[in-house]
Amino acid sequence: MFFEGSEKKIELHMSRSAVSLRSLPKDFWQQALAEAGAEILSVLSNQHCDAYVLSESSLFVWERKLLLITCGNTRLVDAATYMITQLGTKFISSLSYQRKSEFLSYLQASRFEDDIEQLKGHIPGIAYRVGHLDNHHHYLFCSQPTQDRNSGASLLMYHIKGEVAEYLRSDKQSSEQIRCLLQLERLLPQFQFDDYLFKPCGYSVNGMFEDRFITIHITPQERSSYVSIETNLNFSQYPFNIFSELLKILSPSSWDIIGMNTQINNQDFPSHRRLASCNLQLNQLNEFNYNHYIQADSEILCAEVL
Amino acid sequence: MFFEGSEKKIELHMSRSAVSLRSLPKDFWQQALAEAGAEILSVLSNQHCDAYVLSESSLFVWERKLLLITCGNTRLVDAATYMITQLGTKFISSLSYQRKSEFLSYLQASRFEDDIEQLKGHIPGIAYRVGHLDNHHHYLFCSQPTQDRNSGASLLMYHIKGEVAEYLRSDKQSSEQIRCLLQLERLLPQFQFDDYLFKPCGYSVNGMFEDRFITIHITPQERSSYVSIETNLNFSQYPFNIFSELLKILSPSSWDIIGMNTQINNQDFPSHRRLASCNLQLNQLNEFNYNHYIQADSEILCAEVL
Repeated sequence: MFFEGSEKKIELHMSRSAVSLRSLPKDFWQQALAEAGAEILSVLSNQHCDAYVLSESSLFVWERKLLLITCGNTRLVDAATYMITQLGTKFISSLSYQRKSEFLSYLQASRFEDDIEQLKGHIPGIAYRVGHLDNHHHYLFCSQPTQDRNSGASLLMYHIKGEVAEYLRSDKQSSEQIRCLLQLERLLPQFQFDDYLFKPCGYSVNGMFEDRFITIHITPQERSSYVSIETNLNFSQYPFNIFSELLKILSPSSWDIIGMNTQINNQDFPSHRRLASCNLQLNQLNEFNYNHYIQADSEILCAEVL
Repeated sequence: MFFEGSEKKIELHMSRSAVSLRSLPKDFWQQALAEAGAEILSVLSNQHCDAYVLSESSLFVWERKLLLITCGNTRLVDAATYMITQLGTKFISSLSYQRKSEFLSYLQASRFEDDIEQLKGHIPGIAYRVGHLDNHHHYLFCSQPTQDRNSGASLLMYHIKGEVAEYLRSDKQSSEQIRCLLQLERLLPQFQFDDYLFKPCGYSVNGMFEDRFITIHITPQERSSYVSIETNLNFSQYPFNIFSELLKILSPSSWDIIGMNTQINNQDFPSHRRLASCNLQLNQLNEFNYNHYIQADSEILCAEVL
């Protein structure tokens, strides 16, 4: 019942002289995703963006920007290499590649160091690790951007507990009920959603309103549960902290908050302690902010019989 | 500069009808260790025990018990298999095998699950994992013991800091100065010590007094530093908590305390918080107590440029 929820993520900005990414045929994305070992399950479009739910996470395509997130044992670096080659490096104004430490890294097709060697063959950049090897850590690779700033925030939750977590692990689930339990319509009333319920469990949802997006991926499996939320919401426009609300609903044992040029206020978070933090100036335009939190109470571990 | 300090450990008890383990020739131990990819560097003996400093950690041999600890990329399970086969399973009254989650598990020759399959081919038992896959975790395999209880305590420290840690990473070191900085003569005045200083860094010391032992292994490398201390001391016979004293000297960011049929009091520990704990009844004779602690202050992480 193990599934590797931890994701790899690529964000790519195109120069102003490039063609619109949205004008590329669906074939292009299908071929790129095939390189990674993923496929398109569903698409939702508005005037700004095409949002794809994938067999492993999500792809968002704006005119001059794309965000591709894949989980499991996918080879995102191969999709990135395909896209870079096809689009032409001279039209790419910035590239960032991130990889979260996996639950079972030995199952992965490559290590981050291998991925970076491959990417550096096309685009120069600097690679970092934030966090100790024996704890949650994040890998980043960033080119020197010439124009656009990245922006966005991620909430990564580990070991979710409580009623909603139990429902997500149960035999009888529906997308409608999960959407209801996550309170997405209440939290983001203007958003359109497109979701997918995996068998035997697992749930992905993309949401969009104008040029804003949110994407949530839930790997509910007991003992390796993981939920990722990625968004470019403007948090100050909401009467509550969206991340706090989702933390209360899913009740993780620990969580990471990552902001790219964004600081997420933790004052409404469930009772917690911040274990570690890092502010890293990646280049002239971009700052990476990392915070690792744990629940306030000491955890009683249950031994797993193997 | 990376070295895998995390260890594998085997404890084996012989039945009362078996020959004394101490009567076995040195060849036997050399051959067993060669199976694991380790060798003997030094030996210290008293009337109870032979204590070997190894190229990767330590071996203690009593008349009816042995404790073998190996680090790096050694294949301890192969040494165990050799010993079990040579000694004869009918003379083995209990076996326990432990393995700490590694910093870089993909460099290991085998996974715990593989090791257990190999051991179960010789001796039946039950295997456990204590701790989440995305955090420090410990693997255990235990046969059903017929007579002897295990006993002992481990202190495993991660990310040591301060003057002693800096000295251990420096160009100019001596065994004498390290023994002095660790205050071993003050803490354990009755003990005899046998130590080894590795190049470019790394330090091992075995200590013995009558049938009591302590073994300390230091992997000081910055960003993956690790110190393990294993002992069968009777803590109540000392005017201070030995583990507290060593924690104050080496100042780790986090540490694990493992007691086999032993509970280590944490009241003199440096300012800390207990993140997780587990009491696991392994069988009729043995209880495994695990506690994971972190320093009280939130940690500011420095990104590592790769």
